[in-house]
Amino acid sequence: MAENRDVLITEMIMRLIEGKKYTSVRDAMETMHAADIASILEDCPKEQVPLIFRLLPKELAAETFAQMEEDHQELLIKSFSDSELKEVIDELYVDDAADLVGEMPANVVKRILRQADPEKRKLINEILKYPEDSAGSIMTTEYVSLHPDMTVEDAIKRIRRTGVDKETINTCYVTKQNRKLLGIVTIRTLLLAEENATMEELMTEDVISALTTQDREEVALNFTKYDLSAMPVVDEENRLVGIVTVDDVMDVLQEETTEDIEKMAAIIPLDKPYLKTAAFRMFLSRVPWLLIMMLSATLSGFILTKYEAALIPILVASIPMLMSTGGNAGSQSSVTVIRGLSIGEIETRDVLRVILKEACVALLCGLTLAVVSFGKIVFFDGGDMVVALVISLTLLITVVVAKIVGCTLPMIATKIGFDPAVMASPFITTIIDAVSLMIYVNIAMCLL
Amino acid sequence: MAENRDVLITEMIMRLIEGKKYTSVRDAMETMHAADIASILEDCPKEQVPLIFRLLPKELAAETFAQMEEDHQELLIKSFSDSELKEVIDELYVDDAADLVGEMPANVVKRILRQADPEKRKLINEILKYPEDSAGSIMTTEYVSLHPDMTVEDAIKRIRRTGVDKETINTCYVTKQNRKLLGIVTIRTLLLAEENATMEELMTEDVISALTTQDREEVALNFTKYDLSAMPVVDEENRLVGIVTVDDVMDVLQEETTEDIEKMAAIIPLDKPYLKTAAFRMFLSRVPWLLIMMLSATLSGFILTKYEAALIPILVASIPMLMSTGGNAGSQSSVTVIRGLSIGEIETRDVLRVILKEACVALLCGLTLAVVSFGKIVFFDGGDMVVALVISLTLLITVVVAKIVGCTLPMIATKIGFDPAVMASPFITTIIDAVSLMIYVNIAMCLL
Repeated sequence: MAENRDVLITEMIMRLIEGKKYTSVRDAMETMHAADIASILEDCPKEQVPLIFRLLPKELAAETFAQMEEDHQELLIKSFSDSELKEVIDELYVDDAADLVGEMPANVVKRILRQADPEKRKLINEILKYPEDSAGSIMTTEYVSLHPDMTVEDAIKRIRRTGVDKETINTCYVTKQNRKLLGIVTIRTLLLAEENATMEELMTEDVISALTTQDREEVALNFTKYDLSAMPVVDEENRLVGIVTVDDVMDVLQEETTEDIEKMAAIIPLDKPYLKTAAFRMFLSRVPWLLIMMLSATLSGFILTKYEAALIPILVASIPMLMSTGGNAGSQSSVTVIRGLSIGEIETRDVLRVILKEACVALLCGLTLAVVSFGKIVFFDGGDMVVALVISLTLLITVVVAKIVGCTLPMIATKIGFDPAVMASPFITTIIDAVSLMIYVNIAMCLL
Repeated sequence: MAENRDVLITEMIMRLIEGKKYTSVRDAMETMHAADIASILEDCPKEQVPLIFRLLPKELAAETFAQMEEDHQELLIKSFSDSELKEVIDELYVDDAADLVGEMPANVVKRILRQADPEKRKLINEILKYPEDSAGSIMTTEYVSLHPDMTVEDAIKRIRRTGVDKETINTCYVTKQNRKLLGIVTIRTLLLAEENATMEELMTEDVISALTTQDREEVALNFTKYDLSAMPVVDEENRLVGIVTVDDVMDVLQEETTEDIEKMAAIIPLDKPYLKTAAFRMFLSRVPWLLIMMLSATLSGFILTKYEAALIPILVASIPMLMSTGGNAGSQSSVTVIRGLSIGEIETRDVLRVILKEACVALLCGLTLAVVSFGKIVFFDGGDMVVALVISLTLLITVVVAKIVGCTLPMIATKIGFDPAVMASPFITTIIDAVSLMIYVNIAMCLL
């Protein structure tokens, strides 16, 4: 329903533009949300984007600008006069401005920084100096700070005076002169307290904060764990340098999860949305792992060639089934463990509990599959008992090996500081393919 | 670092308990966050949990209780006297109480509802009547509502009077007598406005809201899209019935993503954390797809048996490589498309653009793999040119077929109302295995 409504509104706006009914376009857009206007602009012909954008009132224009994809942002900036650019930059929150500067090509960055006022330019540069995936890189420096000896009345006056430019006023930060963070006071506490209570009396001192250099994914997990809507970011000396807000954290969680999923599917993560990525870029992100896995499959081919004699046709016919079952069983375990690690449900110190659990599950799964396949071969296909035994035994051992390899490798990777997601299905599958073939030919040689 | 600190604190608390230093345990816990206390309690021996829990002050106890896993909640409730139970229930927010009632066995539910005061009991039942994955099931009914003709002064007075029991006061809801939602006013707007401005003048009328029956994942995506921290939930007549807050939405996003990932790895989703799930339950969630995929691999076995004559040993040796490359190429596409669909980057109406893009990527990947494998067989392995040609051609066609099948099936699934995640790698792999073998034997019969 929502999707249809979006399409209808886009079509309506496009018709109004075609008919040059610009006043109506502006009136219609003024009732809409920045995110929706941004997606309409993304669907418009490129040459019309600057025209439509200029119809927006100043504040909405800046919000819309912050929501657009970088290629459209660049297009717009190039069409802006210096004073138009200055207006947009002035309205942007510092974190959005820093994102923008981080994404634009050098010549555009120069123009942006030239138009930003000196204070904002300093703040943007402040944020940009933090490493890409750190808390510092996603924070904003526009927060409300209060002094410990302020009363509720003073605090509310200060918020009234300065709040309009802050990203959030729902949580305020109590700091000393040297910017050391003492505690937080929520707007709710302020409103429900007596007028003459001081911040020192009201503040919560045990604050969950992030270090500027802390990994942004870790920060995001703490938001989930402690149900936060904003978190202060401090430097090594516990001086407040900024805050991270929950809307940015939700974007981080979405991006990091997409990256994990891409890595599990043997794709080098791309940072643009699917439909915005050129086919050639996608090819480059996919072909390396395909090549690596194709070449490493040489190992299974080598095993098959070496033990050619042991492989009578009926055994060859079961190779695809054995390999895919091993691969599937292994990726069930690896994917579960990787996800558990990334949302903090599993930690590396749990390695023995995990292996033990996976071994139990593997035995149960392996036995079930072995019994079913034995029955199927003997009673349904009318096959030979010994052949059925070879295949069933191989299945059992393959499933156990696959599940243990599948759960162990991601935990080892995490322990030694590698990314567990890269250890997922396809990589593990290659190992398991070779191992299961070895098991198969050896059991076959023993029993046949 | 954070992890080590947690372990240290848990150990300290455990030692204090062993030494029966209960006053110190209470003092230590009072400085901690509910989420941390909950995880310490999860690590404690079961018989000590009620003892430690009773040391907590009332409000912190309820917050901690809401953060615990259901098995520990049940344990605690069973150890509570009626008056203790009443105290916890009274302190819980309605949405947490409803979650609790939804998860406990029938006899425990009866006790809980008996202890809840009539008003709360009514609200709990209200929430419980909504379907499991709906907006109604994750909402809370504790919000601040304001009348359109209230002034800022009236509104702030009302918030001061009623705010203490509300889950959030950061956004307030302006409703008519009949509860119809007119608009929202943020606490920021209230604080920055003139004292005698009315809610009608201040409110934002174009509100992003959710229907009680709307899918909770859709609601969560709107939070991300519009950067919200709370969203009103309305019924079919636009009457306000509750609000959803961002902390619950983050949990929803995490759960739904985990479910998607599990489905993509051919696991039936489980709703408990990994280490809390019994091995037998995990076996049950994994073995069905393993069985289905094992039995469907019979198809590839059948193809191999039928075309046995065409398969000279050197061709057999390449079967694992061809099958795994096809599977990997297909799952790259299916996983990318499934993720794109689930975060709203791709919609079903984009199907032609997606197929076109995947076809381009597939051709590029397929050609690269074909050239590399041809070179490897001829120059490195000293293999036959015609055999190399058979294998390379099969690779090229397999990759193209795999990628197109991989991207199309999830989109078809979505279009006809199935879950695309179930269409992911393992299921598609089975199809691609059979197709690639067919291509292989046919090319081999033509060229050899």
